[in-house]
Amino acid sequence: MKNIKIEILTIGEELLIGQTINTNAAWISEKLNEIGLKTYRHTTITDDKEIIKNTLQEIAQRADIILTTGGLGATNDDVTKKAFCEYFNVGLIRNENVLAHIKEIYLRRNRTITPTMESQADLPTNSTCIFNSVGIAPGMWFEEKGVIYVCMPGVPYEMKEMMHSFVLPELKKRFTQQSIYHHRIWIASLGESYIAEKLEKVEKELPKHIQLAYLPQIGIVQLRFTAIGDQQDNLKKQCVEIQEEVCSIFGDAVVGIGDNITLQGVLGDLLRDKNLTLSTAESCTGGYIAHLITSVPGSSVYFKGSVVSYNTEVKIEHLNISTQDVATTGVVSEKVAIQMAEGVRNLLKTDIAISTTGIAGPEGGTVENPIGTVWIGYADKEKSFAKRFVFEKDRLRNIQRAALMGLDIARKCLLS
Amino acid sequence: MKNIKIEILTIGEELLIGQTINTNAAWISEKLNEIGLKTYRHTTITDDKEIIKNTLQEIAQRADIILTTGGLGATNDDVTKKAFCEYFNVGLIRNENVLAHIKEIYLRRNRTITPTMESQADLPTNSTCIFNSVGIAPGMWFEEKGVIYVCMPGVPYEMKEMMHSFVLPELKKRFTQQSIYHHRIWIASLGESYIAEKLEKVEKELPKHIQLAYLPQIGIVQLRFTAIGDQQDNLKKQCVEIQEEVCSIFGDAVVGIGDNITLQGVLGDLLRDKNLTLSTAESCTGGYIAHLITSVPGSSVYFKGSVVSYNTEVKIEHLNISTQDVATTGVVSEKVAIQMAEGVRNLLKTDIAISTTGIAGPEGGTVENPIGTVWIGYADKEKSFAKRFVFEKDRLRNIQRAALMGLDIARKCLLS
Repeated sequence: MKNIKIEILTIGEELLIGQTINTNAAWISEKLNEIGLKTYRHTTITDDKEIIKNTLQEIAQRADIILTTGGLGATNDDVTKKAFCEYFNVGLIRNENVLAHIKEIYLRRNRTITPTMESQADLPTNSTCIFNSVGIAPGMWFEEKGVIYVCMPGVPYEMKEMMHSFVLPELKKRFTQQSIYHHRIWIASLGESYIAEKLEKVEKELPKHIQLAYLPQIGIVQLRFTAIGDQQDNLKKQCVEIQEEVCSIFGDAVVGIGDNITLQGVLGDLLRDKNLTLSTAESCTGGYIAHLITSVPGSSVYFKGSVVSYNTEVKIEHLNISTQDVATTGVVSEKVAIQMAEGVRNLLKTDIAISTTGIAGPEGGTVENPIGTVWIGYADKEKSFAKRFVFEKDRLRNIQRAALMGLDIARKCLLS
Repeated sequence: MKNIKIEILTIGEELLIGQTINTNAAWISEKLNEIGLKTYRHTTITDDKEIIKNTLQEIAQRADIILTTGGLGATNDDVTKKAFCEYFNVGLIRNENVLAHIKEIYLRRNRTITPTMESQADLPTNSTCIFNSVGIAPGMWFEEKGVIYVCMPGVPYEMKEMMHSFVLPELKKRFTQQSIYHHRIWIASLGESYIAEKLEKVEKELPKHIQLAYLPQIGIVQLRFTAIGDQQDNLKKQCVEIQEEVCSIFGDAVVGIGDNITLQGVLGDLLRDKNLTLSTAESCTGGYIAHLITSVPGSSVYFKGSVVSYNTEVKIEHLNISTQDVATTGVVSEKVAIQMAEGVRNLLKTDIAISTTGIAGPEGGTVENPIGTVWIGYADKEKSFAKRFVFEKDRLRNIQRAALMGLDIARKCLLS
């Protein structure tokens, strides 16, 4: 079967001045991808009739399907419908169903309908109407010279409704392509390039129909294997075999397999499964570990709380840190990190505890403890220890990296 | 002067399958707009050498400046540098400064450097290196046949650093025509549409060369007045006059005037100026207020710490909450919010304290306290009180809105 080429054209000056982030293109691509259709290009242009016509002409030379959003409102800066009429050299015809729908909405809002509003029921003579059940401006579907054009509003929830109710089912019915299967493996606390080196052999031996992408975030890297073929089951089986090889290389650095894996989610699942509770004592991370943990719904089952001890006296008084150790080794030290973890574990009566003490920057570094130095402590009923890291110069990134590293240390301890 | 045409080319398969939302294109366009340069088109393509080369050729026919992001890493799916070499038909030459920088990073991380890693210091012979002070892969600047090509990493903070330190100053120096002056007023805790209504008259009376944009974020709205003209001083004077009118309308809802105003930054300045200290007791915000406060460099001067009391026993035991009040009014109540603020203020011996208790969702709502209900408490040496809010259904947004509202309540108390 022919490889269907889809492009998305988002229309709107607000996107080109950076006032609005283009979430429509990503959302549409994701939904197409889920039914096995691949997006080849996103293009964003302004609300200008000539530019729209020229761009349509250009894309129609490359693509089989063009999905557009934006510029369908009733105000002067909305010119997409006019551009399509001129592009196809057709006139407008009033759609009585749409008109009745618009009138009903105005009646409900107690507003008088104007001719401009009524004109939103006028559609190009060569178009099929895509009904807008959650708004006013209808969408349009055109087929000309072997190219499908789908024209939708820029308002995300109106566009999404049209995609779900009409566009996706129609495309799925017509273009049953090969299956696309994504298999995601998440690895924590290792750099993208280190992972890539370790995977050199795996990557070389990948069959042609399976591709690997590295998607790094702070503290975690997603390996995405994309398999294309006829049988979804078979693709999955092949990916699972690769997964086994990857897991044998990285061991407990593998956080999880699946679509939306986070360290805080996986740690939470482990705590819940083992019926354990957690607390944190945070200095340089300033509450960010607690925030990550509590961003997971239902975390109150295992998370009891945190002492954010930004101030040294707070550490000494409430976490029971030895003043002598603070005086001899300093607050940013192994001893203090361990005592903080033990201290909060006792104070909040939890099974395990994580602590951080360090220098997030941009000031405060010393020769011994340069900016980015963080001690991360861990305590449970059997052991306590701390590890030293030296991150970079950026304050916010140091906070984030230290927090994720803390979560990962706890996760690994719970695994072993 | 010629109208400079800029296009942005974002490269990355993750954008075309909708896994990553294209924030880079919006951010770059916004920054270009601020120095008076207009973006004509955004294009997104996959990491494919031939597609990159063809697209560059196509855009170079229309644009004067092409800014690209993505595909500069060391892994096999990163092919942008190779594509540029083939596009210009040039080879690579090792940049010793970049190599030293990469080696230093590896040394700091205690990792052995490999030839693949070292090869990131190789740059096309016709390029100017854009140093990556916050990461590894350098950016590149090319000028060929009257077109400027700027090639940056896809990692947002690396791209942003390069834009700020090199690309924007360079483009501004070369291409800025009339003066553009931006004047920003930040307003907290009021909705965009409410603000717009109140500003209807101001907006109608704006002179033609001054435009107003509303840039809403969670908890705060930026009003950006953009003035274009010949004399920077005059533009500024006009904007300051408008500012006075805006401030008289919104009173203490105005958080500040300037480029990067945050509630946590302004609250921190107030605390420092008045020589006061702060603590927080957080239940539903789970440490997020403490995180926002400590994201400000130097916050250790005024922030002593936080008790994240996710668990009711932690509230009762450490924040001295009355068990009777918990039993009669529940944890999500005015009384408990006030006692939490007073409790942490006493415990950590600070001048003022903020507290939160509520239901972030997505579960746990009741008829009296639906999901999104949050009590925010405040205490200082003279008074303590709590206010009730009902936000929406989304957990993370509720946490963020409650945290910002807490900061704003403290800010207003310190002003009065």
